[in-house]
Amino acid sequence: MSLAEFALIERIRARSKGRDDIVLGIGDDAALLQPLAGHWLAVTADTLNSGVHFPAETRPADIGWKTLAVNLSDLAAMGATPAWGTLALSLPSAEAEWIDAFADGFFALADAHDWRLIGGDTTRGPLSLSVTAFGQVPHGQALRRDGAQAGDDVWVSGTLGDAAGALQLWKRGELDVTRITPDPTIEFLRQRLLRPTPRIALGLALRGSASAAVDVSDGLLADLGHIAESSDVAVRVDVTQIPLSVPLRRALGDDGALRCALHGGDDYELCFTAPRSLRTTLGSLSRGVSPPLTLIGAVSTGTGVHCEGYSGPRGYEHFS
Amino acid sequence: MSLAEFALIERIRARSKGRDDIVLGIGDDAALLQPLAGHWLAVTADTLNSGVHFPAETRPADIGWKTLAVNLSDLAAMGATPAWGTLALSLPSAEAEWIDAFADGFFALADAHDWRLIGGDTTRGPLSLSVTAFGQVPHGQALRRDGAQAGDDVWVSGTLGDAAGALQLWKRGELDVTRITPDPTIEFLRQRLLRPTPRIALGLALRGSASAAVDVSDGLLADLGHIAESSDVAVRVDVTQIPLSVPLRRALGDDGALRCALHGGDDYELCFTAPRSLRTTLGSLSRGVSPPLTLIGAVSTGTGVHCEGYSGPRGYEHFS
Repeated sequence: MSLAEFALIERIRARSKGRDDIVLGIGDDAALLQPLAGHWLAVTADTLNSGVHFPAETRPADIGWKTLAVNLSDLAAMGATPAWGTLALSLPSAEAEWIDAFADGFFALADAHDWRLIGGDTTRGPLSLSVTAFGQVPHGQALRRDGAQAGDDVWVSGTLGDAAGALQLWKRGELDVTRITPDPTIEFLRQRLLRPTPRIALGLALRGSASAAVDVSDGLLADLGHIAESSDVAVRVDVTQIPLSVPLRRALGDDGALRCALHGGDDYELCFTAPRSLRTTLGSLSRGVSPPLTLIGAVSTGTGVHCEGYSGPRGYEHFS
Repeated sequence: MSLAEFALIERIRARSKGRDDIVLGIGDDAALLQPLAGHWLAVTADTLNSGVHFPAETRPADIGWKTLAVNLSDLAAMGATPAWGTLALSLPSAEAEWIDAFADGFFALADAHDWRLIGGDTTRGPLSLSVTAFGQVPHGQALRRDGAQAGDDVWVSGTLGDAAGALQLWKRGELDVTRITPDPTIEFLRQRLLRPTPRIALGLALRGSASAAVDVSDGLLADLGHIAESSDVAVRVDVTQIPLSVPLRRALGDDGALRCALHGGDDYELCFTAPRSLRTTLGSLSRGVSPPLTLIGAVSTGTGVHCEGYSGPRGYEHFS
């Protein structure tokens, strides 16, 4: 069954729920929203293209989830509460089945965070998905990249490198992105690639505590480089402390796992800096809202990201 | 000269100006904005794809202008003041010259309306441009589609059909979108296609006066259909009153011009309804902020859009 653009929009609109602060939703020239008093609006935009940001054969429900996840992750990294957003969808053909499956993944994550789709556009073209997501954060409490101070600790949530590891296995033909596998090692990595969890609750818990934060989307060293540059500080990473999952080490060995963790993107964990004085309280802050936090380094005066105890390929040296 | 994604973003970022209500602009995980108290946020999203929404050979400065114009036009139709927005840019290759020319057109219009680019994404792919634009409108003063009342007048700004006429001439090989022509008839139509003017000032002037409004993007009858459906009314259009430009009539004849005006999109004039009691004051309201307004019809009880005095092709009858 093929759908005209209008029917396609209707099909997506039918899945969009209301919210008290939505004065007017999809269907007019623009949506009307009532922002919270005393808050800043946080706005981020990310595009995923088929074959570039995900394997072309990825199932539509997984594409839907990930399209929104990468955007909510940016809101998490700002300490913002997700609110609303738009979706620009370019599709080679308008298939009802594809749209419904895409919406299953997209709205499963949207609904979990009370995030509402309030506008967008569908066009005919190669598969491409652009979301602009809005969140809200109380005045002065946003987690920016430019607040890291010499003496701060460097923390990361969860484990790193899993998504990049899954992509390696996929490239080798050892992982099928289109179906569940009974091998728990492979399945763990597959889920980490296809269904990343934006660390929204952790971002909220870190308001007023973290001095700087980013989400790990480009790779740990690259993303820490953004903090170092924006904050005008040096960051030292103790690579022996980088949290690696058992499945990743099992699949790629210790060296391969570490390489994925340092350079692979797409994990969407939060990496942040915080004063040393908060070292003991961060555990209780994050309990129940986040996977374990790991202390992986320290901030000092200077510039750049420095990896101690790592003799990786020379290509990485521009980070040190 | 080819640019990496980062350099490309930098090149665009360098053109983005600040504004007092931008707490944090491009460069963090999200931008931070301070919305106006007592206002709603108006949000719209539109995508333009090369070869679908504009001829593939269109010059980058014209693409830049139009990409933003179609979005600002939606804000105009809501009576919203333009504020900020994001741009998702998909490009086959990153050429510095192309980007600079695109930015020339895009920011010429942005700067004219104090609209600021505060985020976005660039990816490699077929040329596609998605903007999400935000505006602000005082509580209760937005121009919606659902407020038309039986007895209201129907008005339109400027002239209609010019963009569709230009497209017809282009399809016949009689108009070159890539260069200025000394023929004033052709050049007028070419400008109307490539450089539409969002009627922002008119939208602001109509706050509190218009009962419903849309921008003419899909074609007059289709867009009036949106008002009729949303407001649950009938709209009668007197086709002898439709404002047609001299160049359009000269290029396509009276019948061809009228057909473009009724069914052609892309003019981005405002079409609105207003109480009859405002008939004399609308002229002074709009003076200096808009091309002339023309009274083209009336709202009554019932459904649908009805064209009197028009015996066009049967294909149009689903509107009546």
